[in-house]
Amino acid sequence: MADYVYGPGRTHLFVPGPVNIPDPVIRAMNRQNEDYRSPAVPALTKVLLEDVKKIFKTTTGTPFMIPTTGTGAWESALTNTLSPGDRVVSFLIGQFSLLWIDQQRRLGFDVDAVESEWGQGADLAALERRLREDAPRHAIKAVAIVHNETATGVTNDLAAVRALLDKHAHPALLLVDGVSSICALDFRMDEWGVDVALTGSQKALSMPTGMGIVCASPRALEASKTARSVRVFFDWKDYLRFYDMGTYWPYTPSIQLLYGLRTALDLIFEEGLDNVVRRHNRLGTATRLAVEAWGLSNCCQKEEWFSDTVTAAVVPPNIDSAEVVRHAWKRYNLSLGLGLNKVAGKVFRIGHLGNLNELQLLGCLSGVEMVLKDVGYPVKLGSGVAAAAAYLSNSTPLIPSRI
Amino acid sequence: MADYVYGPGRTHLFVPGPVNIPDPVIRAMNRQNEDYRSPAVPALTKVLLEDVKKIFKTTTGTPFMIPTTGTGAWESALTNTLSPGDRVVSFLIGQFSLLWIDQQRRLGFDVDAVESEWGQGADLAALERRLREDAPRHAIKAVAIVHNETATGVTNDLAAVRALLDKHAHPALLLVDGVSSICALDFRMDEWGVDVALTGSQKALSMPTGMGIVCASPRALEASKTARSVRVFFDWKDYLRFYDMGTYWPYTPSIQLLYGLRTALDLIFEEGLDNVVRRHNRLGTATRLAVEAWGLSNCCQKEEWFSDTVTAAVVPPNIDSAEVVRHAWKRYNLSLGLGLNKVAGKVFRIGHLGNLNELQLLGCLSGVEMVLKDVGYPVKLGSGVAAAAAYLSNSTPLIPSRI
Amino acid sequence: MADYVYGPGRTHLFVPGPVNIPDPVIRAMNRQNEDYRSPAVPALTKVLLEDVKKIFKTTTGTPFMIPTTGTGAWESALTNTLSPGDRVVSFLIGQFSLLWIDQQRRLGFDVDAVESEWGQGADLAALERRLREDAPRHAIKAVAIVHNETATGVTNDLAAVRALLDKHAHPALLLVDGVSSICALDFRMDEWGVDVALTGSQKALSMPTGMGIVCASPRALEASKTARSVRVFFDWKDYLRFYDMGTYWPYTPSIQLLYGLRTALDLIFEEGLDNVVRRHNRLGTATRLAVEAWGLSNCCQKEEWFSDTVTAAVVPPNIDSAEVVRHAWKRYNLSLGLGLNKVAGKVFRIGHLGNLNELQLLGCLSGVEMVLKDVGYPVKLGSGVAAAAAYLSNSTPLIPSRI
Amino acid sequence: MADYVYGPGRTHLFVPGPVNIPDPVIRAMNRQNEDYRSPAVPALTKVLLEDVKKIFKTTTGTPFMIPTTGTGAWESALTNTLSPGDRVVSFLIGQFSLLWIDQQRRLGFDVDAVESEWGQGADLAALERRLREDAPRHAIKAVAIVHNETATGVTNDLAAVRALLDKHAHPALLLVDGVSSICALDFRMDEWGVDVALTGSQKALSMPTGMGIVCASPRALEASKTARSVRVFFDWKDYLRFYDMGTYWPYTPSIQLLYGLRTALDLIFEEGLDNVVRRHNRLGTATRLAVEAWGLSNCCQKEEWFSDTVTAAVVPPNIDSAEVVRHAWKRYNLSLGLGLNKVAGKVFRIGHLGNLNELQLLGCLSGVEMVLKDVGYPVKLGSGVAAAAAYLSNSTPLIPSRI
Repeated sequence: MADYVYGPGRTHLFVPGPVNIPDPVIRAMNRQNEDYRSPAVPALTKVLLEDVKKIFKTTTGTPFMIPTTGTGAWESALTNTLSPGDRVVSFLIGQFSLLWIDQQRRLGFDVDAVESEWGQGADLAALERRLREDAPRHAIKAVAIVHNETATGVTNDLAAVRALLDKHAHPALLLVDGVSSICALDFRMDEWGVDVALTGSQKALSMPTGMGIVCASPRALEASKTARSVRVFFDWKDYLRFYDMGTYWPYTPSIQLLYGLRTALDLIFEEGLDNVVRRHNRLGTATRLAVEAWGLSNCCQKEEWFSDTVTAAVVPPNIDSAEVVRHAWKRYNLSLGLGLNKVAGKVFRIGHLGNLNELQLLGCLSGVEMVLKDVGYPVKLGSGVAAAAAYLSNSTPLIPSRI
Repeated sequence: MADYVYGPGRTHLFVPGPVNIPDPVIRAMNRQNEDYRSPAVPALTKVLLEDVKKIFKTTTGTPFMIPTTGTGAWESALTNTLSPGDRVVSFLIGQFSLLWIDQQRRLGFDVDAVESEWGQGADLAALERRLREDAPRHAIKAVAIVHNETATGVTNDLAAVRALLDKHAHPALLLVDGVSSICALDFRMDEWGVDVALTGSQKALSMPTGMGIVCASPRALEASKTARSVRVFFDWKDYLRFYDMGTYWPYTPSIQLLYGLRTALDLIFEEGLDNVVRRHNRLGTATRLAVEAWGLSNCCQKEEWFSDTVTAAVVPPNIDSAEVVRHAWKRYNLSLGLGLNKVAGKVFRIGHLGNLNELQLLGCLSGVEMVLKDVGYPVKLGSGVAAAAAYLSNSTPLIPSRI
Repeated sequence: MADYVYGPGRTHLFVPGPVNIPDPVIRAMNRQNEDYRSPAVPALTKVLLEDVKKIFKTTTGTPFMIPTTGTGAWESALTNTLSPGDRVVSFLIGQFSLLWIDQQRRLGFDVDAVESEWGQGADLAALERRLREDAPRHAIKAVAIVHNETATGVTNDLAAVRALLDKHAHPALLLVDGVSSICALDFRMDEWGVDVALTGSQKALSMPTGMGIVCASPRALEASKTARSVRVFFDWKDYLRFYDMGTYWPYTPSIQLLYGLRTALDLIFEEGLDNVVRRHNRLGTATRLAVEAWGLSNCCQKEEWFSDTVTAAVVPPNIDSAEVVRHAWKRYNLSLGLGLNKVAGKVFRIGHLGNLNELQLLGCLSGVEMVLKDVGYPVKLGSGVAAAAAYLSNSTPLIPSRI
Repeated sequence: MADYVYGPGRTHLFVPGPVNIPDPVIRAMNRQNEDYRSPAVPALTKVLLEDVKKIFKTTTGTPFMIPTTGTGAWESALTNTLSPGDRVVSFLIGQFSLLWIDQQRRLGFDVDAVESEWGQGADLAALERRLREDAPRHAIKAVAIVHNETATGVTNDLAAVRALLDKHAHPALLLVDGVSSICALDFRMDEWGVDVALTGSQKALSMPTGMGIVCASPRALEASKTARSVRVFFDWKDYLRFYDMGTYWPYTPSIQLLYGLRTALDLIFEEGLDNVVRRHNRLGTATRLAVEAWGLSNCCQKEEWFSDTVTAAVVPPNIDSAEVVRHAWKRYNLSLGLGLNKVAGKVFRIGHLGNLNELQLLGCLSGVEMVLKDVGYPVKLGSGVAAAAAYLSNSTPLIPSRI
């Protein structure tokens, strides 16, 4: 058997994760195991720990590359900085923030979930009220926020959150899920005073799943010394001990993911992180123009929250968005994202993050058009592609290495 | 360094060879060398030799999987069947038929090159005249024809050539270059009485370059016993001797290509060879509709010759088609085919053969539109994609494994 | 740069994990990401969950394939079955049992650590005393035991542990770390009444690190309903919910590891699990004969505990075993295991588990001989290899697929 | 199915080609096709053509990297430099020189085959007689010699051949098959006045089969202008034309092999070509010591001809060497070389060329010992390994990157 559910040609992977892996990364990971206690792996790790800080835009943070997923990275962020019963203000704006909040509650924190309508960003006015009311007691120990809500295609304004905390001189830790933002959206850990930021390897880093990267500010590290949440696997302390010894790993890392990360970072640095962010903005804008041309609305309700990594398009009530996704896969070898929970059946999602370029996206958009037609939506074939291409044609730079 | 001339995202490879390799084939080739004299390699080879006949649609032919390119496969076809000075009627309709004719002459044959305007198919009326004049002497020992001229996107009518030979009861061998046709276009070695057919691994088989596959009819094998052309590396005799011994290889084969071919054939058989041909027809038609929508003409002058594996689009005189190709690569990571020789600067080529699907093609077509705009051609963005999508939307089947 | 610390030829990987990955597994993992919500991944997962039970020899267990390491698998086993303060009898016989006990304590259990001299197996007499004293109260909620202590090369007798629990009709859960045993040593989850068994992908399964496989008996699943340990990432409940839905994954799995596991199991089943165990016994015996021939003693003090997956050889006091390991790597491209903690500097370890054969081991043993000579130990070159080969020459079967 | 004839653990590949591919080369070749007419491939090729000269130790030679095997490389060397009927002195010392002579005859040259007993080197006294007799006419157009006869493990003295040509001021071209020598044995194209030297990718370069590398001296290039042998695929002229144009390829190269060669050369240069040669000498010496310790004789009759890339060991008359090879493969996953033609059944061959290190060889030698015992030869297990290890232990350097 060749493969499960084989179809001719390339699979067009446009879910918002896991995303397309660049060939050089696949190549780098095509390798044997190695003894992680030999000098080679610590040498590699040391440099990675330095380089990975760059994608967080931090010089003061301490990164942990944990063999886990985003869910595990969440848990690491929370249990290392907080104690059971600690009050956390958390924003509920979609399925992934909901899941994080669920985790926060199950881990025993006192979560104040600030809900927005799905399609809107974090309710910062509500945050400000809470910060104001919390003075001078400062019972709120942390503000937890998803930078980019993958379920609705909504990007929160982290600088504004930091500004509010500063304005109220509030010492709460700022914990940020950057799973679908870091390495794709503008993210500035140090400048925005983020205390813990985290991402997963299978998102904008464009690697396989399996590495949760958590970066802790000096304040977060300090907090970890007194945080009483029970933790072992996710405990930063063990990592820090092995960092000190120069062997780096409290338990066995994936050799393949380390070499994969090396190459993934090399590619990002070769393109330039800011250019990567620009490329995501370009692809996000093009997608939104296509959605608009199709006459569909964006689940994200305001431009200020538009996400450059994922777009959730709302289908008319007579159409089941799950059928859009199923059909895309069955007929065009195109993987789109389902609507989740409250927006199940109502939106389908186009992930446009990671190692992706203009023509890949245009192929996807063209496929979406055909799918929409197939499921009975009166789309004008070519309309979205034309709108997207008109924009891309004016904004795509020459590939620097080829000039 | 990550790679030469790195650009983000996937390279869109639309030259008419080498073509996109399916991931399962890359995977199958990701392997160590093996002793080709151990029992494993002959066992694998034996089955491959049987299975490869299916892509030629022959049951009586004898295939040779030679470590060479298409150029070597040509040489193998000629030197094994002909003697120096033998008269060969050969059709000159583009760069690749020209190169083959050049080879025929350098190998010492007496070539009667029947030229057509580039963009037209083989001049069969001229063939008929020659066949008629050649009776009853039968000095013409072979008719050599390129099934699909890759330079102009012209497919010749092999059934008609056979019909002429039969009509005139002419015993000339029919030698066919199927490099850009076999496994993509309808090809029937036995039914059409083809005496030698050949292809290369990097074309519709969707593998790396390095295996020239030559298939000989019983008449061709018989001819090889008396053919006096000097040959050693390409000599079928050595292969036949090792076939008889059951060890199959007169010299070292590429282990990797053998396993790659195994998987390539598995994929083709899983899709069904006839479905593969239909898919190529679908993608070829879609491409031609796009070219038409752009207001460009097809280098191929008549529908009867339209190629389903490559389309050469003619640009207006004020545009240099080489600039189209350069620009596509520099800005959009899109590889198109250059115009060659007589049509250099005048056409660019879109290869749509091998392991390819609808959305890949639509991404390419969208890219071509942007490139055309960039080089100053007044294309309406989305026009070609819309035309292609309208057709594909009506003709693309569900993926059988996913229904 | 070709690679970190390149040396010509193959690296001889003889640490007791991560181990050598077979080429077919590397090949299977050489692939793109996929949408794990498409029908393909659940279909693959469903079969894997059935097949993975076979390596535990269970039909009633429920497996969880968690994106984590062995340390995480430990945590999953403990937190899902126990509540803070629960009494656990745990055997301390080497570094890995020590680390697990440390984890048990940090997770809040009341651990009764039964220590043996390093090089001895679990003190079952002490267990029996505790079980006897615990009647009828049954305050002991779990017995936690490492099947194979990787630091000392000691294999515990699980059947004897089960027999004691049965003899005393004690309901304590039997939690087993099978990290360096499962798929290599005789392991019988159902027959031995193991309640939770666990392993990691990078050990005898011969895959990269990144999948912790935990298998829960019906009693363990029942216990998980009332266990009050805090857990989210490791919570079986979330897995069970997605099992019920048929989507299987509460969060993103590694696509690559799933396909890798598919192939790893295929290879194990093709060889036959019992033959795999026999092969490990053969290689373990050969190693011990070599160690004996060199005049070194085995850290494992009695034959009843001899491990077939790792051998810790004791060096004379005048030699630093760490130097043995360093030198092997620097001169012969050979990776051996260091002595850990109490036996640091005193033992070096030869891992002989996973996808390994006789000649690989003999190459390693020959290398160890040269290293011993280099560090000043008066070894007779060839002596260990001769002893091992004499045994292997009498016990190695023909390769079934090649007869 | 996992693979043809699967056996657990690594296959021990000790045929004298194809040889073990280093993992970094496999990795580099794990890639998609590319347009070979884009700027990337010529840029890569240009550097490769410069770098590949280093393995020939030439600064004045012109290399051709032909998509073919060693047999094709032979044909390229001959047909580009000679005309039908040209007199060639050729040395017959084993199966591969025999095959080359067969090719020379079939290509129409007037071959004077100077035969030695198999196991002896080229008969240089006979060469001198011929050179003397040929004065002043100089009818001998070329001397063709296999540097290393792979069938018997005999290395010829090329410097001596050159000295004879110089002594007699004979203008014959010196054509050298370096298939099993270049990149492994001391080879000096310029210093020894070699006119055409050639090798194949699957030998000491440690790549897959598929690239025949032919290097032509200025005299050889000059000769190619007037050589009248018929050739097209192998014609240097076409290559030279494309070299001049800077596009380099008259027909499609294997993209994968180009990147593979890049990495293969990187590894060789990192180790240092002279160190590579020393390593081969070390492994060759160790093998010969083992053969001697087993009480077997070397097919190569004198030390001056000992080959550092392959050793042919002679078995006693009561043993069939083919059974040694079959049994090694069936029981120990060890691939050895068969005896060929005159020495079929009489010798088995151990290939010790390419990317190989000490412990790999010792594993092989240990396997050969067990096989010898199995087939009834009274070998003392460990004897050969001990002899080899004693030598290696004194001669193996530390790995420079690890000091």
